[in-house]
Amino acid sequence: MRKPRIVVLGAGYGGLITVTRLQKQVGVDEAEITLINKNDYHYETTWLHEASAGTLHHDKARYQIKDIIDNSRVNFVQDTVVSIDKEAKKVVMTNGEVEYDYLVISLGAHPETFGIQGLKEFAFGITSIDSARQLREHIEYQFATYNMEAEKKDERLTIVVGGAGFTGIEFLGELGNRIPELCKEYDVDFNKVRIICVEAAPTALPGFDPELVDYAVNHLQKKGVEFMIGTAIKECIEEGIIVAKGEELETIKAGTVVWAAGVRGNSVVEEAGFENMRGRVKVDGFLRAPGHDDVFIIGDCALIINEEINRPYPPTAQIAMQQGEVCAKNLSVAIRERGEMATFTPDIKGSVASLGEHDAVGVVFGKKLVGTKASFMKKMIDNRALFMVGGPSLVVKKGKFNIL
Amino acid sequence: MRKPRIVVLGAGYGGLITVTRLQKQVGVDEAEITLINKNDYHYETTWLHEASAGTLHHDKARYQIKDIIDNSRVNFVQDTVVSIDKEAKKVVMTNGEVEYDYLVISLGAHPETFGIQGLKEFAFGITSIDSARQLREHIEYQFATYNMEAEKKDERLTIVVGGAGFTGIEFLGELGNRIPELCKEYDVDFNKVRIICVEAAPTALPGFDPELVDYAVNHLQKKGVEFMIGTAIKECIEEGIIVAKGEELETIKAGTVVWAAGVRGNSVVEEAGFENMRGRVKVDGFLRAPGHDDVFIIGDCALIINEEINRPYPPTAQIAMQQGEVCAKNLSVAIRERGEMATFTPDIKGSVASLGEHDAVGVVFGKKLVGTKASFMKKMIDNRALFMVGGPSLVVKKGKFNIL
Repeated sequence: MRKPRIVVLGAGYGGLITVTRLQKQVGVDEAEITLINKNDYHYETTWLHEASAGTLHHDKARYQIKDIIDNSRVNFVQDTVVSIDKEAKKVVMTNGEVEYDYLVISLGAHPETFGIQGLKEFAFGITSIDSARQLREHIEYQFATYNMEAEKKDERLTIVVGGAGFTGIEFLGELGNRIPELCKEYDVDFNKVRIICVEAAPTALPGFDPELVDYAVNHLQKKGVEFMIGTAIKECIEEGIIVAKGEELETIKAGTVVWAAGVRGNSVVEEAGFENMRGRVKVDGFLRAPGHDDVFIIGDCALIINEEINRPYPPTAQIAMQQGEVCAKNLSVAIRERGEMATFTPDIKGSVASLGEHDAVGVVFGKKLVGTKASFMKKMIDNRALFMVGGPSLVVKKGKFNIL
Repeated sequence: MRKPRIVVLGAGYGGLITVTRLQKQVGVDEAEITLINKNDYHYETTWLHEASAGTLHHDKARYQIKDIIDNSRVNFVQDTVVSIDKEAKKVVMTNGEVEYDYLVISLGAHPETFGIQGLKEFAFGITSIDSARQLREHIEYQFATYNMEAEKKDERLTIVVGGAGFTGIEFLGELGNRIPELCKEYDVDFNKVRIICVEAAPTALPGFDPELVDYAVNHLQKKGVEFMIGTAIKECIEEGIIVAKGEELETIKAGTVVWAAGVRGNSVVEEAGFENMRGRVKVDGFLRAPGHDDVFIIGDCALIINEEINRPYPPTAQIAMQQGEVCAKNLSVAIRERGEMATFTPDIKGSVASLGEHDAVGVVFGKKLVGTKASFMKKMIDNRALFMVGGPSLVVKKGKFNIL
């Protein structure tokens, strides 16, 4: 009898946890495991704000997939997933196809632009290693060019960050550390630099405790960040952005616009014909797509409702990793056709937003934290993600130990 | 009686040597010395190819003027020279004016574009700290952007260097070291990168010994540089350059075009009404402008004919420094109205072109050198320039000791 073929799409937090668990839990004769990923490396999505600002080298935020997986057990294919044919049970990639008996979709998120014109053309994202280093280099180039022009364009030194959610706030925190360095490097007057955060919602860090939000906003304002809360970006143009101020439209010139205001599921999921809400599929208790017991969906493409507040859980690395554990277990049950599948329940241990080096705000095990304690916890969370995937050796190699 | 006012324009090699010699040779009661420079730092023009390629940090190639001059003897003014009124004996700057009794013009060179359209708009130069770091950042941004585009544009990875003279060749040598680093940093296939050197003259390094030229060209070709010798750039456009191939015109697409094919004197000299050839003034034996005994012109704005070959000496740091020594001496004679002025005769100790780390070609004290020996001599020459201006402490601080 042919071994069942398990195909995992994407080596993000969810996909890698699934594969590293599967390679231990499933015997060599029980299943063929294939992992497909665009790059030959995994990157820490939750560290990209640092690589984008230039406060952490992007190589610190990625590691080789082959160093993590058991290459005798897992067949790794570096390719880009183009589409899923769930009837023919196959995945089409740029350079080939692969058939599956069980599929795990852990392809991650795409940016959500809410139909705002010009964002795709003119705004930078904080979404991948590629985008992070491009953004870093773009900002550096703006600073490097400033003194070259006979007529100085101060807008080259203006950075607009769209979105005061998690990514936006963390990126602003890093800029707070990075901008003084850039001013020194390129002989630029710090007072010429403007950092503007535009957020359509009535508060920064929606969903966070108001006390923590105040702490974060005050901290960033002290570092020079201007907040425009309750302000919608109407359009992104080559020269900057257009915002609505009451009835009036105002143009803010900016050499750099960063869009960090939310994500949606992956377009491959939408195009595959699964019932979805903005690319996210409301999975069953076992993390399967409704009506498709052979397809598991985890991470940013999975939609799970938090019954307490009747809203979806936000897409986080924490939940993706927990889903990976459950997904691996349920796949073992599926291929063996015995045992009981586990039901997924998120276990939210906490949430900490970094505010640059040595400062942060958050809640850990129900306790509010700010400052160096929160910053310490943030680094522990980052190190834990490494530990979960690659054990102690990966923590030693890539961990964060720059603790006060 | 009022002390004579000596005003020195520009803190390049010539100006700084003049001032550091004057502050020792001229008593506090004998003259007022003013040095005017655009930046508060001096930079090593001959090291800019390294800062531009990114193989040496630009801060290594500059130092603070106040650390070099005797601030009790020299009045340093940071300002940009706009014009010289030689009849009223005054210098107009962006933020003020200053009168002189004796003027030293050591303002350095401007790029010579030979009327080629588009170079000013689209080509980068290797002319200042500002331009060097902009060029470095521009190249990095091209590499950083390459993987971000769904349809890869290989021309982003093409660098055209216009000119195979000293600066062009030395910059190509640094690129030979830098490109593999950039490929690693930005996950770019080395085979996609093209480095093209376009030179209108029938040889690279015109004026150099043919054996040394062959060595240099072979070395750079091995590192991947393509040479188009005897080929004129007809126009620089946003997408690259247009060259003449016989009767045909050919467009070469390139994300980066660097213009390193020659310099002319400073436009301030031209506009001041001195008789000049492309901004360079044929000075008398004492380095004075003809008909203006109160104006000394040294460095890249001075034109001195090499009688042996009936052609002007090239503008080099070596000659500018030697002129600074003579200029300071002659100024002492002028203000004292006694003694004999010295006649300037260039003493060419040699000329070495770097080909990247640990390789070079050149002639030193009449002896041809290639490889590590030449590279060692190049670093000694660089260190000597530091020593001449700032003594042993500046050599320790900024010197090059990365010797094989």
